Order: sequence, then structure tokens, then C-alpha cells
Amino acid sequence: MAAEVICVGTELLLGDILNSNSQYLAKELAELGVPHFYQTVVGDNIDRVHQAIEIAANRSSILIFTGGLGPTPDDLTTESISSYFNTPLVEHSEVIADIQQKFAQSGRVMTPSNRKQALQPAGADLLPNPAGTAPGMIWQPRAGLTIFTFPGVPREMQRMWRDTAVPFLKTQGYGQSTIYSRSLRFFGIPEAALAEKVNHLFNSANPTVAPYAGKGEVRLRISARAANEAEANALIEPIAQEIKQIAGVHYYGEDEDTLASVVGGLLKAKGQTLSVAESCTGGGLGQMLTDIPGSSEYFMGGVISYANRVKIDLLDVNAEDLAAEGAVSEIVARQMAAGVKTKLRTDWGVSITGVAGPGGGTDTKPVGLVYIGIASPNGNVEGIKYQLSSQRERELIRRMSASQGLNLLRQRLQIGD
Amino acid sequence: MAAEVICVGTELLLGDILNSNSQYLAKELAELGVPHFYQTVVGDNIDRVHQAIEIAANRSSILIFTGGLGPTPDDLTTESISSYFNTPLVEHSEVIADIQQKFAQSGRVMTPSNRKQALQPAGADLLPNPAGTAPGMIWQPRAGLTIFTFPGVPREMQRMWRDTAVPFLKTQGYGQSTIYSRSLRFFGIPEAALAEKVNHLFNSANPTVAPYAGKGEVRLRISARAANEAEANALIEPIAQEIKQIAGVHYYGEDEDTLASVVGGLLKAKGQTLSVAESCTGGGLGQMLTDIPGSSEYFMGGVISYANRVKIDLLDVNAEDLAAEGAVSEIVARQMAAGVKTKLRTDWGVSITGVAGPGGGTDTKPVGLVYIGIASPNGNVEGIKYQLSSQRERELIRRMSASQGLNLLRQRLQIGD
Repeated sequence: MAAEVICVGTELLLGDILNSNSQYLAKELAELGVPHFYQTVVGDNIDRVHQAIEIAANRSSILIFTGGLGPTPDDLTTESISSYFNTPLVEHSEVIADIQQKFAQSGRVMTPSNRKQALQPAGADLLPNPAGTAPGMIWQPRAGLTIFTFPGVPREMQRMWRDTAVPFLKTQGYGQSTIYSRSLRFFGIPEAALAEKVNHLFNSANPTVAPYAGKGEVRLRISARAANEAEANALIEPIAQEIKQIAGVHYYGEDEDTLASVVGGLLKAKGQTLSVAESCTGGGLGQMLTDIPGSSEYFMGGVISYANRVKIDLLDVNAEDLAAEGAVSEIVARQMAAGVKTKLRTDWGVSITGVAGPGGGTDTKPVGLVYIGIASPNGNVEGIKYQLSSQRERELIRRMSASQGLNLLRQRLQIGD
Repeated sequence: MAAEVICVGTELLLGDILNSNSQYLAKELAELGVPHFYQTVVGDNIDRVHQAIEIAANRSSILIFTGGLGPTPDDLTTESISSYFNTPLVEHSEVIADIQQKFAQSGRVMTPSNRKQALQPAGADLLPNPAGTAPGMIWQPRAGLTIFTFPGVPREMQRMWRDTAVPFLKTQGYGQSTIYSRSLRFFGIPEAALAEKVNHLFNSANPTVAPYAGKGEVRLRISARAANEAEANALIEPIAQEIKQIAGVHYYGEDEDTLASVVGGLLKAKGQTLSVAESCTGGGLGQMLTDIPGSSEYFMGGVISYANRVKIDLLDVNAEDLAAEGAVSEIVARQMAAGVKTKLRTDWGVSITGVAGPGGGTDTKPVGLVYIGIASPNGNVEGIKYQLSSQRERELIRRMSASQGLNLLRQRLQIGD
């Protein structure tokens, strides 16, 4: 019993919108263990929707439609399905009442075209849409074939899917075991290098281990199929421990953790405070830190010292050192970190100065050269040099620089000072 | 002569990746004026790829495949196409040489499995892949049917598409007229309110006008079909002028413009400088400003005054006012803006203080309450209050606050001081 996803909408064929519904449904079907071999996109055209049904109904037993349930003449998914199966449409008065009520709530009056949304093939069951006006349906037009329709708006579709399709599929025997996943997060190690170290785990069947890379960091996702979360965790935990052991200092967190949230947790646990001095990142490090609700407990603020004069005036960077070594130098990074720590009276000070590009690079200081300064509670002040690839875009160099600063601070917080 | 997109990859059916290739190709086909009625996703399975070919080849004359060109046993797009048309695969020695060279450049040795990538059906023309190891092909297995294959990696696929498929389609008579678009950008007006004002333009056929909303701002895209850019501009320009006239101060830029780039251009034109004082945005405003290459010409830096003590110590905010009115207040916003302008010796100072949530809101100062301070070159200091929806997420409240600050500064720079 395979399921097939059919997304209806000329806007998809024009490339006006990204088809995120098909990914969402694919993931859901995979988690429930429902086989799923084809996806189709077809425009708002009755003949072509008929053809898509003809093909899909002959190879799959569950057809999942999204899109084309709106009030306009373009929206003809329901009409196409009922005419393909020679079944008349019937009007559901409770849908009209529901639409009228929703319009009234927002002070609007229902238009005649909305009546269309109350029509469903005779014999179909309504799928209520709590978040919009277009209901869907679940219908068995013939033995062994079940059809679902959902609106194209992802938020509405997803809620209706969870509320109606998932319970139905469970009654059909699916979803008795579910896939549970845990992501481990790493920083400072390339995907290929990490993959090589844990290569022996990639052939594991349950749980599976798969690498993902992006935004300068790497994740390993461990996925277990099990009847419940406790059983899944029993499968996942030993693999997670082994990977953490292998990855060492490069491992920094799980699932929704970010470098900023991990740093925040460590600072809170130690009762310590932090300030930042930013040049090439221009505020990006502060923004990452304050993305975390409650960060005011440990993050006091900082200085965006984009111009050299600000480095001197607000951070007490030595003007002669600045002139001699340049703004992108180890000594300036150290003075910025020490300066912001002193000025903001915090336990830690982290600074970033670098060449983000695309212009401004020289032979000795190319685009991608970054110095991170770290002033520690014990008075120690370090300056660490990085050379990111000059080929990278300004945005990525800036984000990598800020992440690098957080990662260095994390390592120092973890080993103690 | 219709084109059909067939994306091959079990990872798409598992929902592991979003199918952005089908959107890219849809948009490209629409711009070239190539009819396009169906898209299919099928897994890495020869029988099912055969079935997809059978269906598509009977209703379309151009089949565009993406994915399944890699070196692993899973990758079987080329094999499936050649076996469907009973055509033997032949090895292209120039592809092997190319792969060997690419591996050598990165210090690796070509594996035997890569040889597979040099196989193409007899009679097919190679499509070189400058950005990867997997070449594609263009092949006419029978009269009236043209098949393209591209790798699944979007960057590689897109480059090969532009270099090879587009020129081919132009020789077939497509793309003689092309769609040219211009986006107009607005801030500070809801999509529905703007749409109402320009409602009479939405029925226009050439150019068309369509609204897009996202990330707190609104765009109107004007698209004209024309033989060349000059003709398109002649169609677009009067509509653009009319819309700008109607939208007034809410219009801020075109196409790739951002509020930060527009503010930067205005500051550069006036030879003026800017500094920022950020509380709830934590560096986000500085980051937006420094996203723009060359922003060091006018952006000097700022103070992230997350803690109240930093507002007092570094920005000379009055401690008594702070205690009496609270950090999120008009007077503190004004003192922050004036303070940073003075401390950093800039022409303009912009400040932001607000309640980003999710915690920290009170009855009198709910989540979403934001004050923007603007200190102008003439000595004038304003404090402007905004109440964003408390229901919005922390991230959006922070981004909207920073954008609001840029937008207020833009308006002041445009009307002069």
C-alpha cells in the first residue's frame, strides 16, 4: 500500500513558489513507514489533473493532494477528483456556516465564490481546516484507494495532516514504530574529516548515522526506528557516546543547541559575564549571543569598533600598535578583548578583527584573515589567528568568524580557566 | 513542444532534502516561454525511472532529468535512460581524464567507481560540468524527443543549465522574448494596504504586477515579456513610476536594494557618518549595516548596551532617568542615540531599546514594545515608539526593530535635516 503525493498548482510550474509541501509529506510518510515512490506536480487544469489521477491510482493506494482548494475558478482539485470518479458534488452546509463565522470574526462578509469550498464528492468525509476556510476530504472512491485533499498553504496543510491523516494511517497499521532522531553538533572539523573518523558507523541499519554540513558546521544525525522514545534512546545513546568520544573537543551540543546557547549555559553555570568587541562582524557576535532568550543574565554588551578611532577611543587600543601592526593583527585583537572586558567590567572579553572582503585584502592580509582575542577572568589574554578561504563570501566569512569566537570561548569555559 | 522535469533521488522521497531544482527549472522554463505541465519525483530504482520515462515521453517532447549522476551504485539515471531506449552505454575517455585531473587538483586519487560517470548512451552529447565530476548529456533517442540530464547539486545543475540547455532551447525558437522583472521594495506598510492602493494594476497583462511579502517588508514585482531589456524597461518604467507615486514614503528601493544599502548610499552622498546604540537587537543593526561592502566609509561602529550599566558607563544615559522610566522608554532611547553620536563623534546616532521577548513583558511594557532614538546632525534628538505584535517571535521582533531604525533614518536622510 504505497502513497503518492500530487501537488496541484500552476504557480509551482511557474516556479513562483518552492514546493515545501512535498518535502514535509515525504518526511512524514517516511517516519510513519508508508512506502512512497512518486511525487507529481500538475497545473490547475482539469484534463491534466485527470491524467495525474489515472496514473497514480493505478500504482498507488493512497493519493495525497495538496493545493487547489481555494475559492477562485483556478482552484479545481475537488472538482477534478469528483468528475474523474463520476461522482456528483454535494454542498456541506456546516462548511458554509464555518466560513461565514470565520469571515465575521475578521469583520468581512463571505463572497459567493467561497460557497464552492463547501462542495465535496458524495460519500467523502470532510477534513476540517481549523486554520483556514478550505476544508479537505478523505474519500474512498473505490475499494483499495484512499484520497486525501489538503489546502496548499503549508501551515493549514500540516495541521490538518497531523490531526486527520496521521490518525487514519495509524488505523491502517502504519506508524506502529516511528523514527526518532538525535543530532550531534560539531564545530572546527570539516565534514570529510569527521566522516572518516566515524566511517564504521555509516553502515549501521538501526540506528542509522548520517552526516549533514552547512553554515560552517557539521551535524551527525542518529536515527532509530522503535516503538517508543525510550526504546529509541536505548538504541541511540551508545552510538552518541561513541561519537562524542571520537570527536572530542569538536563536539559541542545536541539537537537545538547552538554555540551561543552552549556558551550561555556554561557562563550561567559559572556565574560569569561576557562582553564583546567587534570589528569585521559589526555586531554579528552580539546578535548571536542575544538570540538566546535570557542572555542578559551573562551578556553585558559590547563595542562595535568598526572604525580605528573607535578602537582607540572606546577600547583603549594603543594607537601606535594600531598604526604599526594594522587593525587586523594579533596585538589589536588582544587589546580589543582586554579593553572591552575592562570597560564593561565583565569576566570575559571576546574580540574579532578581520578582513571580510570582498575588497580590502592585501598580500600579507588577504580576505578571510581573522584574529580572535580572548581575555579570561584570570587576566590571561590570547590572540588566535585564522585564515578562512578567500573564496568565501563576505556573509560566510563574517558568520564563521563570529562562530569561531564563540567556539574558542566554549572550549575555554569547558576546560576551566 | 512541452518540457517535463523529472527529479531522481530517494532522498527527495524521504524528505531529506528540499526540491529546489524543480523550482529553479520551472522559473527558467517560464522565462524562456517553454510550456511545462508536469513535474515528477522518482526514487533511485530502474523500474520506476523506466515508468516515469514511459509516461513523460508520451506527453512531452523535452525531458529534463536532475540527480542520479554520481559514482555510487544508487546513481542510475543514465543507466535507466539508456536501457529504456535499448541503447548501449559508451565510455568517454575525455571524461575520465577530466575527473582524474579534478581529483589530482585536490590531492585525491580517482576511485574505480568514478569511471561510471564517463558512461553515456551511444549518440548522446556530453554536457561538461565545470563545477563537479558528473557530466550531463543532451540526447535525442528518437525524433521529437530531447533528453537532458543534470547532476542534482543545484550549483552544478544551474551552471550547466545556463551554459548548455538555454542556448539549445534558443536554437529551438524559445526565449525570443524573455520575461524581465523589476522588484519595488516597501517598508512600513502592510501588504494588504499596499495591494489595495495599487489594486487596479493587478489585472495588467504585460507587464504583470504581483505582490510578495516576507521578513516584515513588502515587494511588488513588475514583470514584462519583451524581446530585449530596453523594450521591457519601456513597459515597466511607467508602472514603476505610478507605483512609487502612490506608495510615497513607503517605497525605499529596487531589486537588490536593502534598507541598509539605501541608507549607506544616502550617507555616502552626503558625506555623513553614523553610529548605533543597541539594546534588544544586541548587534543586529550594526550587522545589517556592515553587511554592505564598503560600509566603513560611513559606519563608524557602536555600543551594544545590553546591560543597564553599559548604557550609563559608555553612553552617558542618566541613571535617574533610567531608574524612573526604565530601559525601554523614550527618554532612554533618546539619551542612547545622543550618547553614541557624541562618544563616536558621528553625524548621526541611532538607538534601539525594546522588549524582544518571549519573557520580560509587563502590562505597561509588553513584548514587542520598541523605542527608536535618532540623533541628527542638527542636534535634534527624537524618540519614536513602536508596538509590534506581542505574538511575534523574538527573532522577528529583533529584525523588525533594526529595520524600523534603518527606515526612520532613511526617511530623515531623504527629506534632509
